[in-house]
Amino acid sequence: MDKRVAVVGVGQTAFTRSCGVSIRELCFEAFREAMEDAENLSTKDIDASIICSAPEYDKQRSPSGLIAEYLGLNPKPTFLAEAICASSSVGTRIGWSFIRSGLHQVVAVIGFQKMSELTSAESQERMLRGGDIMWESPFGAMMPAYYAMFARAHMNQHGTTQEQLAKVKVKSSKYSAMNPKAMYQKEITLEKALKSRVITSPLKLFDCCANADGASCMILASEDVAKKNTDTPVWITGLGLASASMSLTGRETVSSLSCAVEAGKQAYEMADLKAADIHVAEVHDCFTIAEIMAYEDLGFCKRGEGGKLIDAEETYIGGRIPVNIDGGLLSKGHPIGATGGSQIRTIVLQLRGDAGKTQIDGAETGLVHNIGGIGLYGSVIIFRR
Amino acid sequence: MDKRVAVVGVGQTAFTRSCGVSIRELCFEAFREAMEDAENLSTKDIDASIICSAPEYDKQRSPSGLIAEYLGLNPKPTFLAEAICASSSVGTRIGWSFIRSGLHQVVAVIGFQKMSELTSAESQERMLRGGDIMWESPFGAMMPAYYAMFARAHMNQHGTTQEQLAKVKVKSSKYSAMNPKAMYQKEITLEKALKSRVITSPLKLFDCCANADGASCMILASEDVAKKNTDTPVWITGLGLASASMSLTGRETVSSLSCAVEAGKQAYEMADLKAADIHVAEVHDCFTIAEIMAYEDLGFCKRGEGGKLIDAEETYIGGRIPVNIDGGLLSKGHPIGATGGSQIRTIVLQLRGDAGKTQIDGAETGLVHNIGGIGLYGSVIIFRR
Repeated sequence: MDKRVAVVGVGQTAFTRSCGVSIRELCFEAFREAMEDAENLSTKDIDASIICSAPEYDKQRSPSGLIAEYLGLNPKPTFLAEAICASSSVGTRIGWSFIRSGLHQVVAVIGFQKMSELTSAESQERMLRGGDIMWESPFGAMMPAYYAMFARAHMNQHGTTQEQLAKVKVKSSKYSAMNPKAMYQKEITLEKALKSRVITSPLKLFDCCANADGASCMILASEDVAKKNTDTPVWITGLGLASASMSLTGRETVSSLSCAVEAGKQAYEMADLKAADIHVAEVHDCFTIAEIMAYEDLGFCKRGEGGKLIDAEETYIGGRIPVNIDGGLLSKGHPIGATGGSQIRTIVLQLRGDAGKTQIDGAETGLVHNIGGIGLYGSVIIFRR
Repeated sequence: MDKRVAVVGVGQTAFTRSCGVSIRELCFEAFREAMEDAENLSTKDIDASIICSAPEYDKQRSPSGLIAEYLGLNPKPTFLAEAICASSSVGTRIGWSFIRSGLHQVVAVIGFQKMSELTSAESQERMLRGGDIMWESPFGAMMPAYYAMFARAHMNQHGTTQEQLAKVKVKSSKYSAMNPKAMYQKEITLEKALKSRVITSPLKLFDCCANADGASCMILASEDVAKKNTDTPVWITGLGLASASMSLTGRETVSSLSCAVEAGKQAYEMADLKAADIHVAEVHDCFTIAEIMAYEDLGFCKRGEGGKLIDAEETYIGGRIPVNIDGGLLSKGHPIGATGGSQIRTIVLQLRGDAGKTQIDGAETGLVHNIGGIGLYGSVIIFRR
């Protein structure tokens, strides 16, 4: 039987509006925490690093070399992997392959983004280029506008309500307030969420995640190394990655992300699990509608019933399938390249039983759903303790 | 025994100053040629694509999704791999791992750069950010300046001459004139090279490669697929990848690239070959001095004797180790993300016996040396027929 691949160390900086340090220092903080977590391994054991970032937000060209050097990883291989917001999930897939293929034994996957490196105008200009620059971006389509279209379609087809969207934010803010690394530490009431100003109808301020600075790090290891060095390896047992049309005109529906459905299918099959077997999940809630779509795309409920799932509080701790109980992108913050790694960290801590106040009793299986751009890339990764 | 991984199809656009087409069309041209080359495979057989580019030169954010869609590869996985000029070599390493690990059977590695997408001023600004933006770039260090320092150090330590540098260009222009896909089709005499204007002393115009537009594509396949679909698989038998300090102050020497030495060591060991066993090589001659350093870093001659190797014409066809007989970066052109794939294409054609006018009799082993930035990343890949 092929050897498995484990996560043996996880680390994350606090997610903040403006970190005030260089990208190399930001990454070092996450790396140091992950190395302390992987207590029996040292820097010299790292065979390769994969740096994950959406590079248009960096001033430094080709930051991977710079970061690897600062972490003391020269002359080991390093490079950058990018799939916008799904970059560190892609990094995890590559790291898994490096280890499974026998090329490496231990790989560090480091995701980061320092959104404060650019001015607000520069960031906005980048956001505009997230759509097809030939057919859609020139007409002003930006991230919130795309997801507003998704929300409108979902409302139209399934009767999803503004209140159901707001309830996703209420849940995320509740758990965010329990996560010391989250950007927002204050619970938001349903009333406050509903009264927030419209950004792009039907999405309001509290339906949108916020740009953040932050870094995450995972140490992946071969089965042999993992068994020798930790009592609590968390195994990667399912990997799914898929793509979809960048232009909305190339899609069959805009009330679902086909890349997430396809990635979920691949991951469930590889892990030999069904949606009902998952004990805890992190999904890509860049906007509240995105979490509702994810419930459906992953099979946590039937198509069109995502709104009812949040109404019934089934995705709270104690519900059928707790989702984003670390605050999610909405309330924890979304430093693009760091997000996948942060989601994975949350699941790893849960499966180890180290999640503290938000620990789910007996969590043995976990899932991470991470989307790039406007549903251009979908990654689903399944973990088991 | 573990299964091998083969290159079963290669394609490349002409390298030009300004291609006049979109990046998706540019990539399609290389992809189509590679698919025609891999005659028994069709688009539906491609399990994943890896897009390789230095994204700061693209207007389109996250071009991998857009390109994969245009090539008809949705919903298959796709993402971007970046190590500046070594991007498509890194893509090859990842593709090898995907196949070797059993995750995929057939992977397309597509490298491209459309340098004409940006204005000359924008390109120059990007070039400036190729060094450490905290400690070196602010002082004006650009690519030619770094390599001029390397050349000066090499002259000082080893007595390398301006004429030896120029001879590298003379050789590359001779073979470029035989390569219909090369940007420069005219042979340059030693006199002309020596008389060209100084760019940054001691490097003259003909010591420098030129920005280009272009794309390359490789189809990688598992041993099972390769044996079933081609009579001429070319096997990847050695993979080396290493990093070095981004700041020159962090390096022990500037007359050699430590990342190339280390990557070569790894690749030779994995392939169980020595430098003397290599029949044909492509090296990263972004500047003439870079080829002379590569001779030494790869062990084609002793340290300090790179100048003598070109004096003796040992790297011409008929010499001990023919190098860059497709024109190299200097005369074929250097579309950053496409370069590694173009180098690999040249070696694959040689090992198949399909290299036409530049065919080396009985070539069974080939090597590709591809450098990212100012010796930040070094990749060496060894192939066997």
